[in-house]
Amino acid sequence: MKKLIGIDLGGTSIKFGILTMAGEVQDKWAIPTNILEDGKHIVPDIIASINHRLDLYKLDKSDFAGIGMGTPGTVDIEAGTVRGAYNLNWAETQEVGKAISDGVGLPFILDNDANVAALGERWMGAGENNPDVVFVTLGTGVGGGIIANGELVHGVGAAGEIGHINVEPTDGFECTCGNHGCLETVTSATGIVRLAYKFAESYEGDSHIKASIDNGEAVTSKDIFEAAEAGDAFSLAIVDKFAYYLGFAAANIGSTLNPDSIVIGGGVSAAGEFLRSRVEASFKKYAFPTVRNTTKIKLAELGNDAGIIGAASLALKFKGE
Amino acid sequence: MKKLIGIDLGGTSIKFGILTMAGEVQDKWAIPTNILEDGKHIVPDIIASINHRLDLYKLDKSDFAGIGMGTPGTVDIEAGTVRGAYNLNWAETQEVGKAISDGVGLPFILDNDANVAALGERWMGAGENNPDVVFVTLGTGVGGGIIANGELVHGVGAAGEIGHINVEPTDGFECTCGNHGCLETVTSATGIVRLAYKFAESYEGDSHIKASIDNGEAVTSKDIFEAAEAGDAFSLAIVDKFAYYLGFAAANIGSTLNPDSIVIGGGVSAAGEFLRSRVEASFKKYAFPTVRNTTKIKLAELGNDAGIIGAASLALKFKGE
Repeated sequence: MKKLIGIDLGGTSIKFGILTMAGEVQDKWAIPTNILEDGKHIVPDIIASINHRLDLYKLDKSDFAGIGMGTPGTVDIEAGTVRGAYNLNWAETQEVGKAISDGVGLPFILDNDANVAALGERWMGAGENNPDVVFVTLGTGVGGGIIANGELVHGVGAAGEIGHINVEPTDGFECTCGNHGCLETVTSATGIVRLAYKFAESYEGDSHIKASIDNGEAVTSKDIFEAAEAGDAFSLAIVDKFAYYLGFAAANIGSTLNPDSIVIGGGVSAAGEFLRSRVEASFKKYAFPTVRNTTKIKLAELGNDAGIIGAASLALKFKGE
Repeated sequence: MKKLIGIDLGGTSIKFGILTMAGEVQDKWAIPTNILEDGKHIVPDIIASINHRLDLYKLDKSDFAGIGMGTPGTVDIEAGTVRGAYNLNWAETQEVGKAISDGVGLPFILDNDANVAALGERWMGAGENNPDVVFVTLGTGVGGGIIANGELVHGVGAAGEIGHINVEPTDGFECTCGNHGCLETVTSATGIVRLAYKFAESYEGDSHIKASIDNGEAVTSKDIFEAAEAGDAFSLAIVDKFAYYLGFAAANIGSTLNPDSIVIGGGVSAAGEFLRSRVEASFKKYAFPTVRNTTKIKLAELGNDAGIIGAASLALKFKGE
C-alpha cells in the first residue's frame, strides 16, 4: 500500500506529514516559513525538506502515491499556482505545482488552506467521512470549506467564503472586504473583541473584562470566553451574541445544504463545548425544522493536524497512478 | 441514440415529455391529476398514459434509456418512494418507482420537484449546463435546488430549502415551518401580498394598490409588480423590499457556494428584468467582492418545461444500461 505526503503551508511554519492511504499520520515534522525576498525560498525549502526526510528514513519515492498541499492565497488547481498569499509575500503568481512535482519526483496537487482543513476534518475528524460536511474555522478571520456529495465545492472559484455571509445588514461593523455585517466582523478573534468594545459603551455592571477595556488594556478572545465561563455577565452577553451570529449563519447554511454536520474549528473554537452548545441553540432556533433535526453542530477534532491530513487526502486521487 | 421520458407530477396536472439525450423536447402532453381516494389513481394513470403514447406513435421501449420524474413531497431516491405530498393526497409512503418501472418496462428514477426544475434550468435553460448553479423558484412558496460539481446536492435529505433561509430574524413574519423571518414569508406570491398589507398600515400617499388593500379587495403579486412598473410609489417600495430580501439571501448563498449563476424562476419571476435587476443590485451590495463579480443573477428560461426537462435529465444515468 502506498503512502501520501501532506503539506500545510502557513505564514509562520510549514508542516509536513507522511500518511497511510487510510489517513493515519505515520510521521510529521515542520520547518519555519522563510518569507524573505518575496517568499522565493519557500518552494525550494519544501522540496529540500521532503527529499531530506525521505533520505533520512530511506523511503523510496515509489512508496508514495503523491503530494497534496494546502496554502493561503488564491489557488489555480489545474495550473498548480498560487497568488495573493500576502502572509507569504506571494503577491504575484507562483509556479508551485510543477516545481514541487519535479523537485521531489511525485505527482502534486494543491487547494486553499480552509478547504484542505475541511477535507481533513471530514476525512479523519469530526466529519466522520460523511459525504456532506461544512467546516467553519474561527481564527484571525473566519474561513470555511464545503464538502457536498463527497467533493469539495469550489463553485467558480471562491465557494466557502463563510466569513463573508452577512449576518447584520442594517448596522454591522465594516469588514476588510468592504462590506458591513460579515460574519467575520463578529465571530473571529478580532470580531469578539470588537463586540466587547461595543458592549462596553453601554454596560453598567461590574466586570473585570469591561474594566480592562475601559482602561485601554488588551483583551483577547480567550480572556472573554474564560470570564464568561467563570460567570462574568458582561462577557457572557458577548459570548451569547457571538453564538447567536454563528448559529444564525449555520442555520442558513444548513437550510441551504443540510449537511450531516457543521464543524467549528480554529483557535477561537478552543472555548469548546461552552461555545458549541450556545451556537447549537441559536442554530436550532433559526434552522428549517428538518435541518434542525438532522444537521449536527460539532467541534473540530484534529487541531493543527487537520491541514496535513486534508492535504494528504488531496493526493488520494493519485493512488491509481 | 436512445430517448428519455420526463414526468412532472403536480397537484393539478401531470406533464410528460419525450426528449433526446441532448435535451431536445420531441413530444409533450399532459393529463389532469386525479387526487381522489388518497391519490391511488395517480401511478396507474401515469403508466397508462405513457404506454398509450408509446403505442400511439409506435415507439418501442428499447428506444428509451429510462424515465425520470419530479414530484412534490419527501422522496426516497434509493427506494423510489414518496410521502407527505399533501397536494396529491399522498400522506403515507407511496411505492412509485417499482410500480412505474414494472408498468412501463423501463428503468425509473425520481427526485423532488424543485430539484428537478433546477436540473432542467441548469441543463437546457439559464444555467447553460454549468456544473455550479443554484435555482430559486418563487411561487406559492419559495423552493430551491442546488447543483455543485455537476451534481444535485441533497445533503442528508433536505438541501435546497432556500425558502427557509432566515432574512429577518428580529421581527419577521411567521412561516408555515414555525420559524419567523424565512425568505418564503416575503418573496413568495403570498409573501409579497403580506409585505403590501404591512406597508399599507403606514403609507400615506396615493396608490390604487393601497386603496384596494384598504377596501379589503384581493391584490395579487402580479397587480403589485404591474403597478410598481407603472410608477406606483407604494408598490415600488414593496418591490424594493422584496428585491432586498431575495438579493440578500442570494448574496449569502453566493458567498457560500459561488455558483456560476443563481437562477430565479417560478410564477412570481414573471415580473422579469424589472425584478431581476433589483435583485441583482441587492445581491451586489451584500455579496463578497469576488462573488459579486463572478456569480450571475439570471431569470429562468424554460418556464413550465423545466420540470419535464429536468426529470428527463435524471434518466441520463441509464444511458449505459
